Amino acid sequence: MIGKRHKMRSVDNGPGKIKTKYYTFAGPPDEMKLESGKKLGPITLAYETYGSLNKKKDNAILLLHALSGDAHAAGWHEDDKKPGWWDNMIGPGKAFDTGKYFIICSNVLGGCKGSTGPSSINPETGGPYALDFPIITVFDMVKAQKYLIDYLGIEKLLCVTGGSMGGMQALQWVASYPHRLVSAIPIAIGIKHSPLQIAFNEVGRQAIMADPGWRDGYYYKDGPPGRGLALARMIGHITYMSDVSMEKKFSRKLKNGNYNFSFYPDFEVEGYLHYKGDDFVKRFDANSYLYITKAIDYFDLSGKNSFVPEDKGIDIKFLVISFKSDWLYPPYQSREIVRLLKARSMDATYCEIDTDYGHDAFLIEIKEETYLVKHFLNRIYRELTNGK
Amino acid sequence: MIGKRHKMRSVDNGPGKIKTKYYTFAGPPDEMKLESGKKLGPITLAYETYGSLNKKKDNAILLLHALSGDAHAAGWHEDDKKPGWWDNMIGPGKAFDTGKYFIICSNVLGGCKGSTGPSSINPETGGPYALDFPIITVFDMVKAQKYLIDYLGIEKLLCVTGGSMGGMQALQWVASYPHRLVSAIPIAIGIKHSPLQIAFNEVGRQAIMADPGWRDGYYYKDGPPGRGLALARMIGHITYMSDVSMEKKFSRKLKNGNYNFSFYPDFEVEGYLHYKGDDFVKRFDANSYLYITKAIDYFDLSGKNSFVPEDKGIDIKFLVISFKSDWLYPPYQSREIVRLLKARSMDATYCEIDTDYGHDAFLIEIKEETYLVKHFLNRIYRELTNGK
Repeated sequence: MIGKRHKMRSVDNGPGKIKTKYYTFAGPPDEMKLESGKKLGPITLAYETYGSLNKKKDNAILLLHALSGDAHAAGWHEDDKKPGWWDNMIGPGKAFDTGKYFIICSNVLGGCKGSTGPSSINPETGGPYALDFPIITVFDMVKAQKYLIDYLGIEKLLCVTGGSMGGMQALQWVASYPHRLVSAIPIAIGIKHSPLQIAFNEVGRQAIMADPGWRDGYYYKDGPPGRGLALARMIGHITYMSDVSMEKKFSRKLKNGNYNFSFYPDFEVEGYLHYKGDDFVKRFDANSYLYITKAIDYFDLSGKNSFVPEDKGIDIKFLVISFKSDWLYPPYQSREIVRLLKARSMDATYCEIDTDYGHDAFLIEIKEETYLVKHFLNRIYRELTNGK
Repeated sequence: MIGKRHKMRSVDNGPGKIKTKYYTFAGPPDEMKLESGKKLGPITLAYETYGSLNKKKDNAILLLHALSGDAHAAGWHEDDKKPGWWDNMIGPGKAFDTGKYFIICSNVLGGCKGSTGPSSINPETGGPYALDFPIITVFDMVKAQKYLIDYLGIEKLLCVTGGSMGGMQALQWVASYPHRLVSAIPIAIGIKHSPLQIAFNEVGRQAIMADPGWRDGYYYKDGPPGRGLALARMIGHITYMSDVSMEKKFSRKLKNGNYNFSFYPDFEVEGYLHYKGDDFVKRFDANSYLYITKAIDYFDLSGKNSFVPEDKGIDIKFLVISFKSDWLYPPYQSREIVRLLKARSMDATYCEIDTDYGHDAFLIEIKEETYLVKHFLNRIYRELTNGK
């Protein structure tokens, strides 16, 4: 019975057993030029694929992850206790239907999940880059992903999509490589990082850099600045929930039934945040947290850097999704995307999902997201295959 | 000319030059019993008064301050660069009209502005209490204030009021000593601390306690855990503003005109938060921050601890004020106060001020607050003096 259950879990109406792949490029003397002007190479990107690329190579969808995500969006790795982070959305008959589409999920440059980042080996020193790693931007993340898409032989992506920082990358794809896209689904994101978003990132960075274990970034021999990184994650995690969802989940429930009358955590919400913080230290690199938060703080596709294609020949179709209770990336910021697209008479649909889950809703409100994404992709793919 | 200006400043349509007063009580063997069951004494409270107590002693108003506030609500101390924290609201003809009322502002137990707290001398050791200071609650803060009001010979306060933690104390006065009150004005507060509010306090406490300079609370010889306390304040300060006010004040303005491409703060919002954090270290004790945030996390006057007086003979009049853009203590929490009062047929007026300033608006939206408070107090005092 247990064996049967395990077997069911391992197929789970998803892509099943999965292995992460790696692509390395931009080795010397052809290093990739970064937005800062510096050069970086060789670069490795970790990525996963689900489903099959068809002969026309017109059914590829690129998924992009959020701050703490990775290439493992769906299915199960050998030792997984849970499937990839968007598994509910990816598989036969799901929103990203692996029966029809070829799904690619790419990790980001600067990360710590198999792609080149500050914890990677610096070929010049033979040790980890640490703070010798150059500052990167969302522009650079997407530029690296374009090497991967070229390598996979895909001329035009059917769709590029992601939530939060994944949504930034989707919009950056539109800005950088509009000719390579049929459609885009930016989720829970705006066109630029706001001062509120920057402020929360900065206090997270300060929490890490104030930890003596950070050692100015050169901590890889001695172990991570765990307390600082945990604190950064605790701060972040609060911003991903909502006042209402926290009240529903925790209210004022006590861990031990009574007040401690001490500085040990009394409330379940405190215990939950500590758990989330400590768990994050096991799976994420503190310097990657610094580099990635800095990259997203630099994100600004407004004004003269507008993401909206100038070229009248460009006809990217957009589905823009936001979540009513998301106070970190509020719906008005998503509406600004739509407003700019409509001002250029572009094809854009906007949906605000009524939910209490706050910013994290893009990982949770699967039913609504499935409905919206599935039918949007149906239309896009039908128009692409019939209309041409 | 400079002399003249200085003279104008020192009167400033406010109470002018002010000195903080101190009252010490509950010396052994009559120490004050705390909510935790422990005893504490002697206790000193710092307080200030503005205006004069009349012969009937029926014109006294008690002001209560927020987390980082103190007894210095109005007027100028000898070396002040700015007046007390609510100076715009206190003075002849102002909301708290010193021509009519006797205004008392009491510091809180557990603080560091002249009242007994963790940085005070522990009579048992001759050194600072540090973590030997007992955990205190808002109940205890108010119990200590009642000693002060007794000492001042005031049988019944015309009004008790404050914003944020000051509003908690006002509600706690209603719960603890309803017979001693004619009216109450709780501002920007609810009946219990929510999980969101607790979560932000807990990350602030963790920032302090993770600083090696905290030394388990016994840092007074070596200097404060400045980096941790600054970080706690930065986190707090974000929550006192709003998305809109931050966008208006900072947007994405850069400190130096260009991205640094480093981990130094790039944006004005970051510089502002660093300034606010560093400034706070000069004027606040880190252990007081721990004790006071814990006290407010324990604040819960809901359910069986309801603040609403059971005694039908009690007739306290309420003005409840909230601020539309306050996402830390949202208006729905203030409406809950009014709902409970109305359910007991009590006299309660509710006003939600339409502002972008977030939680800090109670210190900023002076014009609206003046209008509401002044006319509410006019009515209360008129009814008290004519009607009886």
